[in-house]
Amino acid sequence: MRQSKLFTKTKKEAPTDEVSKNAELLIRGGFINKEMAGVYSYLPLGLRVLKNIENIIREEVNAIGGQEIVMTALQNPELWKKTDRFDDEKVDIWFKTKLKNDTELGLGFTHEEPLTNIMKNYISSYRDLPCFVYQFQTKFRNETRAKSGIMRTREFVMKDLYSFSRDEHEHNEFYEKAKIAYKNIFKRVGIGHLTYLTFASGGSFSKFSHEFQTISSTGEDTIYINEENNIAINKEVFTDEIKKDLGLGDNFKETKAVEVGNIFTLGTRFSDVLDLKYQTETGESRPVFMGSYGIGPGRLMGTVVEALSDDKGIIWPESIAPFKVHLLSLSDNEDVKKEANFVYDALIKENIEVLFDDRNDLSPGEKFADADLLGIPFRLVISSRSMKEKGIEIKKRNEEKGKIVSLDELINILKTVS
Amino acid sequence: MRQSKLFTKTKKEAPTDEVSKNAELLIRGGFINKEMAGVYSYLPLGLRVLKNIENIIREEVNAIGGQEIVMTALQNPELWKKTDRFDDEKVDIWFKTKLKNDTELGLGFTHEEPLTNIMKNYISSYRDLPCFVYQFQTKFRNETRAKSGIMRTREFVMKDLYSFSRDEHEHNEFYEKAKIAYKNIFKRVGIGHLTYLTFASGGSFSKFSHEFQTISSTGEDTIYINEENNIAINKEVFTDEIKKDLGLGDNFKETKAVEVGNIFTLGTRFSDVLDLKYQTETGESRPVFMGSYGIGPGRLMGTVVEALSDDKGIIWPESIAPFKVHLLSLSDNEDVKKEANFVYDALIKENIEVLFDDRNDLSPGEKFADADLLGIPFRLVISSRSMKEKGIEIKKRNEEKGKIVSLDELINILKTVS
Repeated sequence: MRQSKLFTKTKKEAPTDEVSKNAELLIRGGFINKEMAGVYSYLPLGLRVLKNIENIIREEVNAIGGQEIVMTALQNPELWKKTDRFDDEKVDIWFKTKLKNDTELGLGFTHEEPLTNIMKNYISSYRDLPCFVYQFQTKFRNETRAKSGIMRTREFVMKDLYSFSRDEHEHNEFYEKAKIAYKNIFKRVGIGHLTYLTFASGGSFSKFSHEFQTISSTGEDTIYINEENNIAINKEVFTDEIKKDLGLGDNFKETKAVEVGNIFTLGTRFSDVLDLKYQTETGESRPVFMGSYGIGPGRLMGTVVEALSDDKGIIWPESIAPFKVHLLSLSDNEDVKKEANFVYDALIKENIEVLFDDRNDLSPGEKFADADLLGIPFRLVISSRSMKEKGIEIKKRNEEKGKIVSLDELINILKTVS
Repeated sequence: MRQSKLFTKTKKEAPTDEVSKNAELLIRGGFINKEMAGVYSYLPLGLRVLKNIENIIREEVNAIGGQEIVMTALQNPELWKKTDRFDDEKVDIWFKTKLKNDTELGLGFTHEEPLTNIMKNYISSYRDLPCFVYQFQTKFRNETRAKSGIMRTREFVMKDLYSFSRDEHEHNEFYEKAKIAYKNIFKRVGIGHLTYLTFASGGSFSKFSHEFQTISSTGEDTIYINEENNIAINKEVFTDEIKKDLGLGDNFKETKAVEVGNIFTLGTRFSDVLDLKYQTETGESRPVFMGSYGIGPGRLMGTVVEALSDDKGIIWPESIAPFKVHLLSLSDNEDVKKEANFVYDALIKENIEVLFDDRNDLSPGEKFADADLLGIPFRLVISSRSMKEKGIEIKKRNEEKGKIVSLDELINILKTVS
């Protein structure tokens, strides 16, 4: 895409009311727009990152058998009253609204109730199990404070996956697969090395749940990492008992972290109340055994920005970057422009995603600063100097110095790196 | 995909409270689930159709220069008070909600206000214009009645596109391009032959707006079609004056129709009030000239079902069908099963999207009835009979009789049709 056509522009100044690094960098780069506290729109560059993250999640969830649907935000109170989760005294993050006839509706903050209800149409026999259903859908949560940029917002897309199994044993099989899928996701989006499977408090059906926590100084959680075993324990359950239970010693490192995903054994909490049953092979009627598995792509995007940035801007991992390549035409000299256009066309032909800074009337310094802020993995420069050296300057965002290569070498480099 | 793994199943009975044909067929087929009146979830088959429609729209809107973003449902009342559209007396379809501090928020039914506000960050000079911004985003509309299935709902995804131009002349250029893009969209989703560019009432900045109306007995609008000129006039503006204005005679056919899209000249209605200005080449300050362009992919899906179905079920156009091919293994005989699996693998290898009815314990009649209801364009049958004839039976959904072809012929047919 030609940057001269991109409607967003970078800003030098961070918004004064924005205290989080992720929102500051993302707003300055034109990735997002703040509508109000905790409510952000995604602009073209930001939406590209978000969709890349969603696609990675989708691939991994499809690979373990997930079937994609999309449920609604508007929630029928009758269902939630059955599980005793409609009352604001019981759940304090509801946004509520009303139909014209004054019926109160909720805006979904999660979807166990409506999905369990849908599955009553389709699950009746052991032959219908197990099955795994997920969505990317907009959640609404009436957070009292929302100061962490896109990491804790009042409206956000969530990938929520739900599993339906015959019994705890069958459930555990999928639960372990989900753990691996989640690890793959965090690795692929570039924060695998900072992310720990973390024991957290469970519910009525399991002693613990599992979170995935990414080390971050701005995180709201405190975790204790055990490096030897590559796991962590959330402060809320960090007791001698759990250390013993898990067979861990006393070698823990305390750190701040962000919860980037969680997996939860629900058991029959919802199927009991909402009457989701199946017949076993011997004709017995049993409640379906459930689990839920959540990841917020926006929070993941914010976490990546917090973890992978420097004082000049963002450093996107290739897998989720808005473009792979940022091509800078560094002079208004006609030969340089012509060469830059030639390289742009050549990259497009090779199906390489490139943002082409073809803007006139900007100094090299301004273009470099923009490239650093936007954080696209490979920066290519066409200038009078590079043309004298008969090549193109290529530099990775996280490298200090670039090098001059030929067009063939360039395409080779860009096609071979993952 | 193997149908034995698909969690949804067809139903023989239509829901008793569902009066519209589109919702009846889509619910029976397991495409959608009714959450409450006017609120539907999309299940795997339905989501595939919806995404196919969205992708066609996206391609056509990108082709005329659209840049994709996604704004939020939660709306800041301050903006809407400026344009005098927050008051329920002025706009009677708002869903409203509240923050914990009691601030009232709206749930967006359209997005002129927030986008105009965003563009103030990015438009300052004539060099920034024109630009075209769109989204696929969930709208909330508090409809008094919602009885048309997925054609009029309280929560739905809308593709809303907004244009920002220097003046009316530049605006009109894009407006004409948008007309053509819209015609392409309706043609590609399979209802081009039933859809008319229709003159409807305008706003403060133009005498008329344009709707795209699709002939449908369940439509809420009445239009007058002039076949010679391939245009129509909405009943609400059907006067002698307009007929004369448009140079049309008196040859009109009255019909019921569904509004599947609309394009609207907004002029400076929003830029004036929200202060979206730019500097001309001569340094003059002028309000930006705007337009808006809407299509609801869900309504389009419902319209297709209404228009293209028979008494056995849906007849999806290939371009938006959930799968291209429905492969039926018609017997539990091991040879038939083996052959069906072989054909399935061969089609997958050719990247042909296929739903494989590999379910056991269903009669041929049940499988045929499901195939007709689901409406996938090509039905393939593997049975003892087809194997005796050393081939595969292929039949289009809208054909009476199939024919036996070899695997090579089959792949040839499926690869060459659009």
